[in-house]
Amino acid sequence: MLHQLPPHRAAEVLSEVEPDQRKHLVAELSTSQLSEVVKQMPHDQAADLLADVPDAQRAEILAGLPGRSQVTELLRYPEDSAGGIMSDRFITLDADQTVGAALQKLHGIADSETTSITYLYVTDADKRLVGVVPLRELVFRRPDRRIRDIMLRDVKHVWADDDQETTGRMFDHYHYLAVPVLDRDRKLVGIVSANQVIDVLQSEATEDMQLMVGLSGEERARTPWKVSFPKRLQWLCINLITAFIAGGVVGMFESTIAKWTALAIFLPIVAGQGGNAGIQTLTVIIREMALGEMNKGDSWRALGKEGLLGLLNGLAIGLIVGVVGWFWKHSITLGVIAGIAMLLNMLAAALAGVLVPFTLRAFRIDPALASGILVTTVTDVAGFLFFLGLAALAIMVGWR
Amino acid sequence: MLHQLPPHRAAEVLSEVEPDQRKHLVAELSTSQLSEVVKQMPHDQAADLLADVPDAQRAEILAGLPGRSQVTELLRYPEDSAGGIMSDRFITLDADQTVGAALQKLHGIADSETTSITYLYVTDADKRLVGVVPLRELVFRRPDRRIRDIMLRDVKHVWADDDQETTGRMFDHYHYLAVPVLDRDRKLVGIVSANQVIDVLQSEATEDMQLMVGLSGEERARTPWKVSFPKRLQWLCINLITAFIAGGVVGMFESTIAKWTALAIFLPIVAGQGGNAGIQTLTVIIREMALGEMNKGDSWRALGKEGLLGLLNGLAIGLIVGVVGWFWKHSITLGVIAGIAMLLNMLAAALAGVLVPFTLRAFRIDPALASGILVTTVTDVAGFLFFLGLAALAIMVGWR
Repeated sequence: MLHQLPPHRAAEVLSEVEPDQRKHLVAELSTSQLSEVVKQMPHDQAADLLADVPDAQRAEILAGLPGRSQVTELLRYPEDSAGGIMSDRFITLDADQTVGAALQKLHGIADSETTSITYLYVTDADKRLVGVVPLRELVFRRPDRRIRDIMLRDVKHVWADDDQETTGRMFDHYHYLAVPVLDRDRKLVGIVSANQVIDVLQSEATEDMQLMVGLSGEERARTPWKVSFPKRLQWLCINLITAFIAGGVVGMFESTIAKWTALAIFLPIVAGQGGNAGIQTLTVIIREMALGEMNKGDSWRALGKEGLLGLLNGLAIGLIVGVVGWFWKHSITLGVIAGIAMLLNMLAAALAGVLVPFTLRAFRIDPALASGILVTTVTDVAGFLFFLGLAALAIMVGWR
Repeated sequence: MLHQLPPHRAAEVLSEVEPDQRKHLVAELSTSQLSEVVKQMPHDQAADLLADVPDAQRAEILAGLPGRSQVTELLRYPEDSAGGIMSDRFITLDADQTVGAALQKLHGIADSETTSITYLYVTDADKRLVGVVPLRELVFRRPDRRIRDIMLRDVKHVWADDDQETTGRMFDHYHYLAVPVLDRDRKLVGIVSANQVIDVLQSEATEDMQLMVGLSGEERARTPWKVSFPKRLQWLCINLITAFIAGGVVGMFESTIAKWTALAIFLPIVAGQGGNAGIQTLTVIIREMALGEMNKGDSWRALGKEGLLGLLNGLAIGLIVGVVGWFWKHSITLGVIAGIAMLLNMLAAALAGVLVPFTLRAFRIDPALASGILVTTVTDVAGFLFFLGLAALAIMVGWR
């Protein structure tokens, strides 16, 4: 179908589809078709598309492109940086102009170039950003005012090489419709609009949820199974290694279980409850980190709060497990052991839920990455050790 | 500190803090203090604040408020509806005006009322929405054009009682800076801007992650432990019930374990791997649902893909578990049983990961709500049943 569409329609289609679908579609088009399509695109979309094209083909397409230098400029920045998501459609004003003169200048500009504009930027002779004028000011101010007098001077900006997550947080904290992007010489090189950031925030949230449970961070329902399969298997294998470690702990106590098979019933309960509590803590911490509200100094406070919650929930859940253990198997010893192991494992869960993401972050690893697997490994191993260890001890001293 | 601030500063502070902090701060202020503060707020923020105030106090504050009727109007809508997040700061134009006349009218409007405006709305005599004019059109069009001729007629809108998630998706699909909100008579009652939606999308993503693991959906690192404790305990107790059900399944096979204690080592491995795979599937489905890209018709396709992945990963992981089981405990029977149980549990995990969220949604329950607990319950119970059931069978026919 894409082959049949006129270039400007094909350009629209390619700007709407998901990035991984676009990659497949682009591979289907010839160099000359792509050249025609890219000509119809705004520079930032052209750059996004060309980033997916093999080097030789890209050079050929760029050679025939009118906006070649601008697109090349945009291609310089990594895909997940502010420079990678910015658009170069912005209009600059001169500080000495009047509102009326500015309005006159703006009358001539074609409609397609103005659709995403909400702010006008004021730059000096060196293209350095000195101020910003919201479009609305031109509407609501008297025509004889000077731009210099109505512009806002304290302009919040991002650097072109800033991470897109940093950029997203900027919109979350200050409520702007667009933010200017500066290069390291403080020259204005582009703008990022709130819309682009909505996409970024959505995909960052998806990524965090996915990484935590051992998914790739980019998996969608439409991802072909051939792509999903090796990626998921990889994490399942890592999880399997940790499961074998936990299984090894159980193996250490095989003779204990042989003497007291009722233990096998409470094993998954003690470990599973701890895992659940640990994941709760982890989810809170990971999300706060993503929202930029969990700094180094906060780790102690988080540890204190989660430790306290672990203690309280551990006492409550431990009591219930203990009482059930006692009456179910008519063994007060089993109840006491299960209850204490449960309490200790809830504390271990709280510690792991806080320390795992903070440790990963200290090593500059994404704190969401497989942290769910790590936390449940801790709660499995700790749960088995506490519970079976106490049981072995009870058998040794003859309480059973 | 809040007591010392002049009302307009206190209003700024209260509009920036998190909703649950605001609730605590508001409780510290007297009715007369609150009255002064609320007078300094835009209507939508005033309504948000008054929603947290006891009925009697609210009536008293409203009685002395200049914008009383508008705030009362905003208070009518539930907090998580489009009406609940909308602002009533919008400017309407008449279709028969010229651009020049509109500009003239707009010159007199105070700055504080225009800061969030990007579109002007065109309404008829009954206040029904008939068109929209982006502010930029007034800047870029000739002054003698009529509003009727330059306005866009096909205006996308939301209904005041629409869910805020629906509103968020609108911004995700169409890239607007603001969307008009209509009541059921098609009268324009407010606007929702992209900024408000960024907050909504962030909190929706947080909510989904939290509900899935049995958190309240609103827990933040700063939530006091007294608030967190009962909420987390509640879900841990529900998880405990499911853990006891799973424990009960193990209990049914206590005599099997007594005869063959090595089984206890593989129990948590078979169940845990299944749980991990199920949560992976669940995470993909929940997130797609939240992004509005998982409709009823997609359930079969999702089931097909996840079923296939379950089969393939099940074969791979089952093979590894089987071989390890065989060599670790020098029992080919144990290996075969563990491998087959692993494969079957991975299939159960895929089914549960798809069916649990779709079933919850069919009953109009948030598909993220505790779905993690439900899925791991299925994988625990199924894993124990498959594994211990096969083992009991093997013992019965004398293979061990």
